[in-house]
Amino acid sequence: MARTQGSHSDITGPRIRAAALSLFARHGYAAVSMRQIAGEVGVQAGALYNYTPDKQTLLFELMRTHMEDLLSAWDTEAPQAGGAMVQLEAFTRFHIRFNTSRAEAVFVSYMELRNLSPENFELIEGLRRDYETRLEAILRAGAEARVMVVTEPRIASMALIAMLTGVNTWFREKGRLSLAQVEAVYWDMVRRSVAGEAGLGA
Amino acid sequence: MARTQGSHSDITGPRIRAAALSLFARHGYAAVSMRQIAGEVGVQAGALYNYTPDKQTLLFELMRTHMEDLLSAWDTEAPQAGGAMVQLEAFTRFHIRFNTSRAEAVFVSYMELRNLSPENFELIEGLRRDYETRLEAILRAGAEARVMVVTEPRIASMALIAMLTGVNTWFREKGRLSLAQVEAVYWDMVRRSVAGEAGLGA
Repeated sequence: MARTQGSHSDITGPRIRAAALSLFARHGYAAVSMRQIAGEVGVQAGALYNYTPDKQTLLFELMRTHMEDLLSAWDTEAPQAGGAMVQLEAFTRFHIRFNTSRAEAVFVSYMELRNLSPENFELIEGLRRDYETRLEAILRAGAEARVMVVTEPRIASMALIAMLTGVNTWFREKGRLSLAQVEAVYWDMVRRSVAGEAGLGA
Repeated sequence: MARTQGSHSDITGPRIRAAALSLFARHGYAAVSMRQIAGEVGVQAGALYNYTPDKQTLLFELMRTHMEDLLSAWDTEAPQAGGAMVQLEAFTRFHIRFNTSRAEAVFVSYMELRNLSPENFELIEGLRRDYETRLEAILRAGAEARVMVVTEPRIASMALIAMLTGVNTWFREKGRLSLAQVEAVYWDMVRRSVAGEAGLGA
């Protein structure tokens, strides 16, 4: 994307992204103008175009960055050793922690898929599939090692991701349960959902 | 809400609701004007106000109707006999079928919560809680009868509903699996997610 290098743009870029994300989350992409984003940042609308060619690119870059951050964070955090159940527990806890810490980006990434151009939609869908495939591989490995029962690994990966992302709709920092406790409750359900009879001993 | 009775309004009302739902789903509530909705229906903007006092009321009525339809459909369909596992299977299949058949209303109901006035938000949240409570009661009954293991019935109900609603994000009528097959895959996961060792015999 067109981007002016240099200190001005290096400082302004993150502020533009933050303002756009917050405004898109609050009002929806279609209802937010470049002028509004500029106003939130405290620059002239024209200054935005030094940073991004248009609103579509701004939305796409927000969603791309979110998905790439998610992928690289998991790839860094995924256990290097341990079987499929160890991987699945790590994935479960990682997904809840990452997504609750970026609720606005998660919301916009789901809600604004409809507002991406067809080419941009394909690219974001590809990244989303990459992430789902990480979980699918864990489920396939678990089924192969006979520590899990998973008849449809692809569908199971989407089902579990939807379940885990759902934490965002109700979790509050000051609620009855800490995030660690929430992780434990979900991990118990995830574990059971793929466990054969042998896997429920614990 | 203010509503002119009579044949004109009786015909126009459903068309206004359908147009508003479709436009809100496509562009988002904030980006859609009453004029646009009127244009889609083929009436003057002024005619809309015979039907609804404002756009907020229109959104609220769409969401209220959706939640009330969901609740009354489940209350009609819930098995009159059978234990908690029978109820849970019926709920699982019902939720997937109802929600995939009304994808736009489900999407708007989730996405536009942020655009409800505080009082309207409370009312819709109350209906949502009523629905979650139906599932929670099944899980509590199952745990009490020792046919299920559910440590946190409230959280489990939200987790399962999120998982089941997720079908909407990927299911396509002409896909590899029929809706009945999808129901079966999800029911297997739901059943396992709450099953103790004894429950996995099948």
